[in-house]
Amino acid sequence: MTRHVNIREVSLRDGLQIEKPIPLAAKLELLAAVVATGVREVEATAFVSPSKVPSMADAAELAAHLHDYPDVEFSALVASPGGAKRAVAAGLRSIEYVVAADDTFSQANVGRTSAEATDQIEEIVAIAHGCPAPVSLEVVIATAWDSPFEGPTPPQRVLDIAAAARDRGADRLSIADTIGTATPGRVSSLIGHLRPVIGDMPLGGHFHNTRGSGLASAYAAVGCGVTRLDASVGGLGGCPFAPGATGNIATEDLVYLLTDSGFEVDVDLQAAIAAAEVAKSVVGHDLPSSLLRAGDRIRN
Amino acid sequence: MTRHVNIREVSLRDGLQIEKPIPLAAKLELLAAVVATGVREVEATAFVSPSKVPSMADAAELAAHLHDYPDVEFSALVASPGGAKRAVAAGLRSIEYVVAADDTFSQANVGRTSAEATDQIEEIVAIAHGCPAPVSLEVVIATAWDSPFEGPTPPQRVLDIAAAARDRGADRLSIADTIGTATPGRVSSLIGHLRPVIGDMPLGGHFHNTRGSGLASAYAAVGCGVTRLDASVGGLGGCPFAPGATGNIATEDLVYLLTDSGFEVDVDLQAAIAAAEVAKSVVGHDLPSSLLRAGDRIRN
Repeated sequence: MTRHVNIREVSLRDGLQIEKPIPLAAKLELLAAVVATGVREVEATAFVSPSKVPSMADAAELAAHLHDYPDVEFSALVASPGGAKRAVAAGLRSIEYVVAADDTFSQANVGRTSAEATDQIEEIVAIAHGCPAPVSLEVVIATAWDSPFEGPTPPQRVLDIAAAARDRGADRLSIADTIGTATPGRVSSLIGHLRPVIGDMPLGGHFHNTRGSGLASAYAAVGCGVTRLDASVGGLGGCPFAPGATGNIATEDLVYLLTDSGFEVDVDLQAAIAAAEVAKSVVGHDLPSSLLRAGDRIRN
Repeated sequence: MTRHVNIREVSLRDGLQIEKPIPLAAKLELLAAVVATGVREVEATAFVSPSKVPSMADAAELAAHLHDYPDVEFSALVASPGGAKRAVAAGLRSIEYVVAADDTFSQANVGRTSAEATDQIEEIVAIAHGCPAPVSLEVVIATAWDSPFEGPTPPQRVLDIAAAARDRGADRLSIADTIGTATPGRVSSLIGHLRPVIGDMPLGGHFHNTRGSGLASAYAAVGCGVTRLDASVGGLGGCPFAPGATGNIATEDLVYLLTDSGFEVDVDLQAAIAAAEVAKSVVGHDLPSSLLRAGDRIRN
């Protein structure tokens, strides 16, 4: 059995999303550091409303630089058919379309109910698959365990979105713990319910470490057959008013945990720590990564 | 199946061990807050060299106050027969005797090799079990996964100490990730090797969150049949020169993870967060706990 886990680096998108906009040159510096880790999948930007997410306003400019790294699979997040069209036009070969599982978050995020956002999957798939060169479409189910507004998400809502993604031809699915409240028990439970619905459709996981459970949840997901995990160097990605509070799981912490536990990953640990240093420098504040602070085991 | 996990609160011992000595009154304030969480087991102090560990010099004075809480099982850590005698004389009904699995750490810690420390189990058991009232003895295997000096600990060393503990009549065993390098894969592996050696002897786990993997390791241990986990309110316990760097897993983070995952614990989450606030106030610096910062899920 190959025990390989794909890590998708999301520092450039989810990591920078809530930061003050940083210059394109700084993003390219972080991009170079991230690619140097050996990672094979990078979520590079988001084609969303520049007024709502000013830090991603340079999506098309950034996309023009991705061709410098032909061996990496770059993706972009979109929230509407218009965003999908812009992503495809900018040359992206992989798109993530987010559907929140609760209505209040979905309305606040994209101005549509969860059902309305689900209904758009078909149109987004048509845009992706209608390109002359194939573009892969992943549906990301946000607030898959809990909503910041509505409390625990009924699992059936996640299953319904997953079924729609499957029926409407999405290539991949992932489940996102948007507010960092998932725990291993509920991760295993949800995936157990999800698998019969999606069959062998590739399933990814996206976890935040807000309540300390992010890595434990990610490991539980791997134990349930998830083979792709999102992570962010330094644990970048959180509220700038509470440094370290709500970051993505840190790439280097995940690499340490997985490799020490006997899994294979493409990301080099020391290069990931170096990239975390770049991330810290680029945003100008401390980051919540454990390895960035404590170092690898061999240094003790 | 009852899925109950015993949490042993170690903030008063492991948590305060490397802090500047604090007044007894402050310890009693923390003790009261800790007991108010509903926890059933508390490691209250250590009977060790006052010159080496000045923060524990008041062990006997503290022990005199433990009778105020007759429903809690208090224990003390010891590192020698002399310490065990002092603990028993002070009225403790439960003792932890530490044996490090690697010689360099053992020599640095107690001036004896691992084998010499193992040989003393018999004498410590005789002291504990020779009391008029029964005193329970737990052997704690320190550096069970890695040594800060020698690198990875050969599992056979852990198994040999465990076999000695079993043969010489110890009541319980626990395995300690002293430097916070264990990960779930290696935790599962070691416990898998250990179980045939110790049979149904109660097995506990002690994890630090230094590299972000502490909670994931603790959860893996529970999955392997460990029913008692050490934790410290606030994640107290770490190097004062690197705040937040090497704490024990935080009680409130563990309670959140376990209860949200479907396990039962005796500790109330809000009371644990309140005790973490007391711990923070008592030591006068920030603590690494996630819940202390982010709050419970229901508050979002």
